[in-house]
Amino acid sequence: MSDPTSDKPAIDFWFDFVSPYGYFASTRIDALAAAHGRSVRWRAFHMRSIMMDKLGQTTPLLDTPLKGDYLKRDVPRMARWFGLPMRSGGLANFRSSNASRAFLLIEERDAAAAKRFAAGVFESHHAKATPPNTPEQLLQIATEQEAVWPDLDLAAAIPTEAAKDRLRRSTDAAMAAGVWGTPSFVVDGEMFWGADRLGLVDEWLRRGGW
Amino acid sequence: MSDPTSDKPAIDFWFDFVSPYGYFASTRIDALAAAHGRSVRWRAFHMRSIMMDKLGQTTPLLDTPLKGDYLKRDVPRMARWFGLPMRSGGLANFRSSNASRAFLLIEERDAAAAKRFAAGVFESHHAKATPPNTPEQLLQIATEQEAVWPDLDLAAAIPTEAAKDRLRRSTDAAMAAGVWGTPSFVVDGEMFWGADRLGLVDEWLRRGGW
Repeated sequence: MSDPTSDKPAIDFWFDFVSPYGYFASTRIDALAAAHGRSVRWRAFHMRSIMMDKLGQTTPLLDTPLKGDYLKRDVPRMARWFGLPMRSGGLANFRSSNASRAFLLIEERDAAAAKRFAAGVFESHHAKATPPNTPEQLLQIATEQEAVWPDLDLAAAIPTEAAKDRLRRSTDAAMAAGVWGTPSFVVDGEMFWGADRLGLVDEWLRRGGW
Repeated sequence: MSDPTSDKPAIDFWFDFVSPYGYFASTRIDALAAAHGRSVRWRAFHMRSIMMDKLGQTTPLLDTPLKGDYLKRDVPRMARWFGLPMRSGGLANFRSSNASRAFLLIEERDAAAAKRFAAGVFESHHAKATPPNTPEQLLQIATEQEAVWPDLDLAAAIPTEAAKDRLRRSTDAAMAAGVWGTPSFVVDGEMFWGADRLGLVDEWLRRGGW
């Protein structure tokens, strides 16, 4: 999907709502891209499927010895660096699949509304420690973000097979693009993993690669 | 170990020679630290032990689906970014434990000589595609880097139980410091993982944390 105001291809921002690093990146990527005349397509995928099926990571990251301890220290440190509020609802208390299905249902209608909704989900889970798990909680966020339509019963649509299949297809598309972690950015076919690569994404856009 | 010219504690640079990101970082960390009046202690550890025993990663990174493909693309891209020659001897062709044992044997005598030796090992494996596996190859690098002593038979010392135990103890010390990946940097008890965090290490030193 290209920005109608630009001939340059959009940047793909791949994310799963579970990751605080995706939350950090979500607050920066649109402005970063706009400075280079680029738009951003936000694309939700299901990280857990890739971890289990492709990476062979059956232990949740936060429960992994040493690495989990590092992440628990790094996440608040990076939140301070980004200047963002951080009070996580906890990985164990949040399953992102309903939120991602809702995001994709909204994104089919209006990409800008879907970004507002996504920002609301990130904030609810990572800044307010209120992980939005249920269709009703997600409908509330969609309503707050004006991402609702009279002919879309979002809460009813989230658990349908069609919505589940849509998330599976998005996850397949992520893997086809080479995505294996969240957040990831794809710029003209070049993938970058991690919120701490935003500076390199910026440099790649400025220099046109290297 | 503190820099005798400074009251500020040294930075620990933890590395395993296998990682190209450790090679990249090794070319920058001393100058980065010196700009803040800090010295650096280079500390070899055995990454594979931590991967197997702690992280539960039994598949080598480069053989991991998707992630391996990303690394194969990212490593040359980051080599270009750092402006460093890159022609890897390949993970499968290199076991770093002999090189790390040699490093520790040299480091007990002379930390500066050990850094020169380490730079030679990194270059041999990552820039010249000649992985130094054998005690004889490592002795040659030590000789080229003037890291030899008449009373130290390096090639004979590398495979001894004492040298193996020294590497095990260094790996235990790495884990005790929270290290789970290579390269890692510890600044005043604060750990940072990855060559792409060098900028944040610099900022941490400049700001005194945040």
